[in-house]
Amino acid sequence: MIYLTKKSEFSASHRLFNPTLTDDENFNIYGLCSNKNGHGHNYSLEVTVKGEPEPETGFVIDLKKLKTIIETEIIEKVDHKHLNYDVDFLRGIIPTVENLAAMFWKALLPKLSGCQLHKIKLNETGSSWIEYFGDEFEIKKYEL
Amino acid sequence: MIYLTKKSEFSASHRLFNPTLTDDENFNIYGLCSNKNGHGHNYSLEVTVKGEPEPETGFVIDLKKLKTIIETEIIEKVDHKHLNYDVDFLRGIIPTVENLAAMFWKALLPKLSGCQLHKIKLNETGSSWIEYFGDEFEIKKYEL
Amino acid sequence: MIYLTKKSEFSASHRLFNPTLTDDENFNIYGLCSNKNGHGHNYSLEVTVKGEPEPETGFVIDLKKLKTIIETEIIEKVDHKHLNYDVDFLRGIIPTVENLAAMFWKALLPKLSGCQLHKIKLNETGSSWIEYFGDEFEIKKYEL
Amino acid sequence: MIYLTKKSEFSASHRLFNPTLTDDENFNIYGLCSNKNGHGHNYSLEVTVKGEPEPETGFVIDLKKLKTIIETEIIEKVDHKHLNYDVDFLRGIIPTVENLAAMFWKALLPKLSGCQLHKIKLNETGSSWIEYFGDEFEIKKYEL
Amino acid sequence: MIYLTKKSEFSASHRLFNPTLTDDENFNIYGLCSNKNGHGHNYSLEVTVKGEPEPETGFVIDLKKLKTIIETEIIEKVDHKHLNYDVDFLRGIIPTVENLAAMFWKALLPKLSGCQLHKIKLNETGSSWIEYFGDEFEIKKYEL
Amino acid sequence: MIYLTKKSEFSASHRLFNPTLTDDENFNIYGLCSNKNGHGHNYSLEVTVKGEPEPETGFVIDLKKLKTIIETEIIEKVDHKHLNYDVDFLRGIIPTVENLAAMFWKALLPKLSGCQLHKIKLNETGSSWIEYFGDEFEIKKYEL
Repeated sequence: MIYLTKKSEFSASHRLFNPTLTDDENFNIYGLCSNKNGHGHNYSLEVTVKGEPEPETGFVIDLKKLKTIIETEIIEKVDHKHLNYDVDFLRGIIPTVENLAAMFWKALLPKLSGCQLHKIKLNETGSSWIEYFGDEFEIKKYEL
Repeated sequence: MIYLTKKSEFSASHRLFNPTLTDDENFNIYGLCSNKNGHGHNYSLEVTVKGEPEPETGFVIDLKKLKTIIETEIIEKVDHKHLNYDVDFLRGIIPTVENLAAMFWKALLPKLSGCQLHKIKLNETGSSWIEYFGDEFEIKKYEL
Repeated sequence: MIYLTKKSEFSASHRLFNPTLTDDENFNIYGLCSNKNGHGHNYSLEVTVKGEPEPETGFVIDLKKLKTIIETEIIEKVDHKHLNYDVDFLRGIIPTVENLAAMFWKALLPKLSGCQLHKIKLNETGSSWIEYFGDEFEIKKYEL
Repeated sequence: MIYLTKKSEFSASHRLFNPTLTDDENFNIYGLCSNKNGHGHNYSLEVTVKGEPEPETGFVIDLKKLKTIIETEIIEKVDHKHLNYDVDFLRGIIPTVENLAAMFWKALLPKLSGCQLHKIKLNETGSSWIEYFGDEFEIKKYEL
Repeated sequence: MIYLTKKSEFSASHRLFNPTLTDDENFNIYGLCSNKNGHGHNYSLEVTVKGEPEPETGFVIDLKKLKTIIETEIIEKVDHKHLNYDVDFLRGIIPTVENLAAMFWKALLPKLSGCQLHKIKLNETGSSWIEYFGDEFEIKKYEL
Repeated sequence: MIYLTKKSEFSASHRLFNPTLTDDENFNIYGLCSNKNGHGHNYSLEVTVKGEPEPETGFVIDLKKLKTIIETEIIEKVDHKHLNYDVDFLRGIIPTVENLAAMFWKALLPKLSGCQLHKIKLNETGSSWIEYFGDEFEIKKYEL
């Protein structure tokens, strides 16, 4: 097995806010991230796939093909957007990096063939990030 | 003269949009940056001052003092905010990096003493940035 | 499981020196790092925890809480210090990155709740680093 | 176990090209990377070894020794070279990062003692890279 | 005046070699960079223009337009190419970063309008780079 | 004129402390940087020279020669050292980045030929740095 990672970037707004809680409760949990008009980041997204290289090509997967899938399924949908309002497959989700990573996983998984999705790493800023390996967990959907 | 630079970061949303133009005209000028719900960035702000070091300290300026001024006058006002709606001294300004740099210059200038403000460098993303040295230019204010 | 990493930085001096060996033996092992008056680094410390996101918040752990624990238990004690002389919980330890990582693990472990400590990554310079997952190993304590 | 990583860099040319295929087939697979006169990269190579620190030194392995092995076995042979023509142990191999990583693994493994080779990470550019853990796979050798 | 910089990257091979000198003389001047089969780099190219922001847009120049000019005039011609053989406007030039920067300046200058070309910065590696402001100097052309 | 920059790194300890002041006065000026046992940094040093490229070589200056001068005159003397005690040409100087840059300038200037020293940039950490262009200023020498 060889692991291949493709890094992409997108710029988006989000607001961390649970609509079933009060503004004060949201501020206690999310701090400045609960600001009503949102705030934004340059997100860094790393998608890692694994597989065995083809002897004829020496490639685990054609990097151009992987790049196209990531662009089409994720980047074009979230770049220069507000993650709470503008993205169909994120609608109603609290856009923490944890939840975003899991939703990105679900978006990519059915599009990949010839290799296995291994990890999604998502950075909001240079000083913290999450890594997700596909384990299922509960993600709540709220009415906007 | 020695030049001292302090780098800071903030995360904010913005929308590039001239309210006297149509949506189509705005899209032609600003592209995805005119998205109605905004989008966001991790901004990197570099403030450069110049001066002669004090022989007793070997410092051009106390870096902690410079950091406090930048934090108080800029970072606390723009971090985790929407630059079009949440920041008093940016109200009505189209928040391009050019305009932001000039407004940040005006905010910092009266607070500095014992050194001269030399440059403001502002990055929206890692692949483009502007540098501003204090030359006056016209900045329009629009009704929101 | 989701893995969340928080990166911090601190600046410190250290000297690599085993007091039971001669100066020549120390130089053979540690090279310039055995310099009597010490030398220093900007250390980069990455702490990774793992856990399942809470459905109500979408957070594995409140990042602000994790940051506070790392600041209080490690950064405030080692930043702008000499690691051989100024830090109680490192006293008598040869401050290699290997030993530092294991001592940092012991300092953090009892303070974390609601998630598991997974990894400590420690960089002395940008060109080499260690990763530690909590395996016990012998750390000698020497008289200063 | 502690994992120690040493990062090195080298600058080299390569051409991705399978001589049993036509130029068109090569272009379909490798795109611009099949350019006849080659192209080049600053490669970043990260070698990770694992082991238990020696109590007397606090070191998993002497980093200077590891650096010397990497320099001698890999960097001196590939730096400022054309990977298709100038490097004996790569001769006939299609120099994808996948194949390069596996060949580097074979070059390093017999030279390491007192620790285990764990991972080779190889970057051609900052936006994609592979990680290899020593699993065997078929690498074809072609006549030049 | 505001200065706007756009950073791009390209991957290319080159060989530093003066055909009027012997191989030994070339090695004395260019070292490993004179390797017959060439070697390569990920080049980082920063183009800085200056101008006064338009009050109606808040832009010195439309960054998308600047990006298109750089892509068309430079990146598409040099990316994944051998700079000694594959690029018409570099033919016969010794491809040092100094000469490349001056040739890139000549390629961009006639295409820019509404702002002035100010600087070209060119990195071969992360540890050295040149900056060029348009001063004329003699560039020799050699037969290949 | 073309400007060529060479970046180097060194790791050193220092203590910011004026021996004619009390410990409290030193703490007021230098904060944690006045810690008695010192602290340390990975310094990044950028040396910029300017000149006209030689038509026969396409080089402003042979980068290997520049690198050797910087290594010999500065890096070998300060790397893995305590800047207050271990470096002859810094003896008695308060080792702020301002004073260090001016002393490095004096060390390099007489060794360069065929080009002009233009700038020294010195980083203690990634978030602040100084740039020095050779203007004379008073640097006090104190008894240790």
